[in-house]
Amino acid sequence: MIETPYLLFLGDAADPLAAKVAQGIKDWRPEHCVGQLRLEGCKADMGLEDLTIEEAIARGAKTMVIGVANRGGYISDLWRAVLKEALVAGLDLASGLHNLLHEEQDLVLVADQNGRSLHDVRIPSVRYPIANGQKRSGKRCLAVGTDCSVGKMYTALCMEKEMRARGMKASFRATGQTGILITGEGVPLDAVIADFMAGSIEFLTPDNDDDHWDLIEGQGSLYHASYSGVTLALVHGGQPDALILCHEPTRKHMRGLPEYQQPGLEELRDTALVLARVVNPDAKVVGISINTAGLDEDAAKAYCAETEARMGLPTVDPFRHGAGRLVDALD
Amino acid sequence: MIETPYLLFLGDAADPLAAKVAQGIKDWRPEHCVGQLRLEGCKADMGLEDLTIEEAIARGAKTMVIGVANRGGYISDLWRAVLKEALVAGLDLASGLHNLLHEEQDLVLVADQNGRSLHDVRIPSVRYPIANGQKRSGKRCLAVGTDCSVGKMYTALCMEKEMRARGMKASFRATGQTGILITGEGVPLDAVIADFMAGSIEFLTPDNDDDHWDLIEGQGSLYHASYSGVTLALVHGGQPDALILCHEPTRKHMRGLPEYQQPGLEELRDTALVLARVVNPDAKVVGISINTAGLDEDAAKAYCAETEARMGLPTVDPFRHGAGRLVDALD
Repeated sequence: MIETPYLLFLGDAADPLAAKVAQGIKDWRPEHCVGQLRLEGCKADMGLEDLTIEEAIARGAKTMVIGVANRGGYISDLWRAVLKEALVAGLDLASGLHNLLHEEQDLVLVADQNGRSLHDVRIPSVRYPIANGQKRSGKRCLAVGTDCSVGKMYTALCMEKEMRARGMKASFRATGQTGILITGEGVPLDAVIADFMAGSIEFLTPDNDDDHWDLIEGQGSLYHASYSGVTLALVHGGQPDALILCHEPTRKHMRGLPEYQQPGLEELRDTALVLARVVNPDAKVVGISINTAGLDEDAAKAYCAETEARMGLPTVDPFRHGAGRLVDALD
Repeated sequence: MIETPYLLFLGDAADPLAAKVAQGIKDWRPEHCVGQLRLEGCKADMGLEDLTIEEAIARGAKTMVIGVANRGGYISDLWRAVLKEALVAGLDLASGLHNLLHEEQDLVLVADQNGRSLHDVRIPSVRYPIANGQKRSGKRCLAVGTDCSVGKMYTALCMEKEMRARGMKASFRATGQTGILITGEGVPLDAVIADFMAGSIEFLTPDNDDDHWDLIEGQGSLYHASYSGVTLALVHGGQPDALILCHEPTRKHMRGLPEYQQPGLEELRDTALVLARVVNPDAKVVGISINTAGLDEDAAKAYCAETEARMGLPTVDPFRHGAGRLVDALD
């Protein structure tokens, strides 16, 4: 568990997209952000107050999160002095970069000398069990996509926000690096050893109150040749009661696979249901989430309406138009 | 790649089942076995000549394979002297035990001092790529099961043997510890990091002659809550042209999951086909393999005949009655 609140480190971000991890944390957990720290030339801005490390600590910050990535995902030498300064001053560090904090001898040394923790959320910190398939109390919702990167994480986060606003018991359960940095805990599923994938998701979504919903962050796609096994482990480890289908209508081919087309929503619905019912005979598809970022307002509304009429399921872009109708569909 | 031929180490096997790895190697690669080495009290016997390490080396042995497991899968102190003697005398060691050879400091030291290799087939020795889903030349056959441990490996090995006897080009492709020790190479799929599972199977079954068949060792089951993700990675990484359905009719529940029943063969067929056609639109289910070990001869034949009539597919126990009809079904 990563200690909050955070100081968001934006480094020398080349553009706003380079700081998308920081953006996710600021969008979904603004209460965990005391401010931002930017180096000269930084092109990203979270709209938070610019703080020094000392100012951030004075406001209660416990961890500086590396909210920026450069090409290659390595720890830039430009950042190094600030990272060490943070450790010396009393902050932990958290990172989702490929280049692990633990691979940097100098950071490990300074952290040890100062009794601070380095959190590399890209690798598991837990020894997960083999899944036992046993029915757990509480409810679970999983977003499954026609492709990777179609808005599964944002769908779950939008639903969590709406449910909490309604006073419902709801927990976003992170399964990827950004999600883990947003919530401070979770399973880096893509880095888990094959035999323990489903078990890691059972571990992540344990028994809970009967009226509590886990909103499990989806990964990959059952139709993605590279990552489908990860997705099926989520379906079987997560035992979802409710499935949300996620789709991005302007995608020309499966992400990273130019020879592959996205399946239709009907195909995804049928396949996901058959597989989900192996572990939960009552699993249902309850709604559809469309990522309309590539469409103008009229086209977005028309696409959702057409899909809803065809599929007979509430269909919205939860980030653009609110997740209320998806939450209404949970029972 | 593990160097052949082998001396099979049976240790102090408590019963024949404890030496099932040795049995698999002896059954499927007798030409790789120069003999066996047994300690006092060994209750297993491969019917091979009992050799000393020196005699085995004189007959060309390159590697001593630990063909036995005790409860817990650890390296027994009773074995240690013989393992070191083998290294000193010039043999490599190969093991599929949970307790890795590389975890034993004294074995690592003796191996280093003598320039020998320690092969732990339970962990990957290769950095596998992310799957790219591209169509490969050559043909591939994958066995998929209604459960774990229903005869998928034996089905593939029986088919390989029959195909080679017919002069066909065929390669068993190992994806588990025993299979890797049988063939000397392969992918320990259950120990691969999630993101690289499908890629490891693409790596294992590369482009080949148009009339060459890879017979890919199956793992888990699409219907097994603990391991289904591993199975789907095999389906999508393997791009099978032909699927064989495997079933064990006397199983009372899914292996290790008392609350779960095996699916019907019809269900397995439909689900496996939908998923296989994501990567290979021409994928077909060509036959059914029944593990009839728990049935007498009459019951075995009746079960296969009934299944064949119901499913409309050639149905045999390839280990008991030969794999000829399954091979006939490949085109």
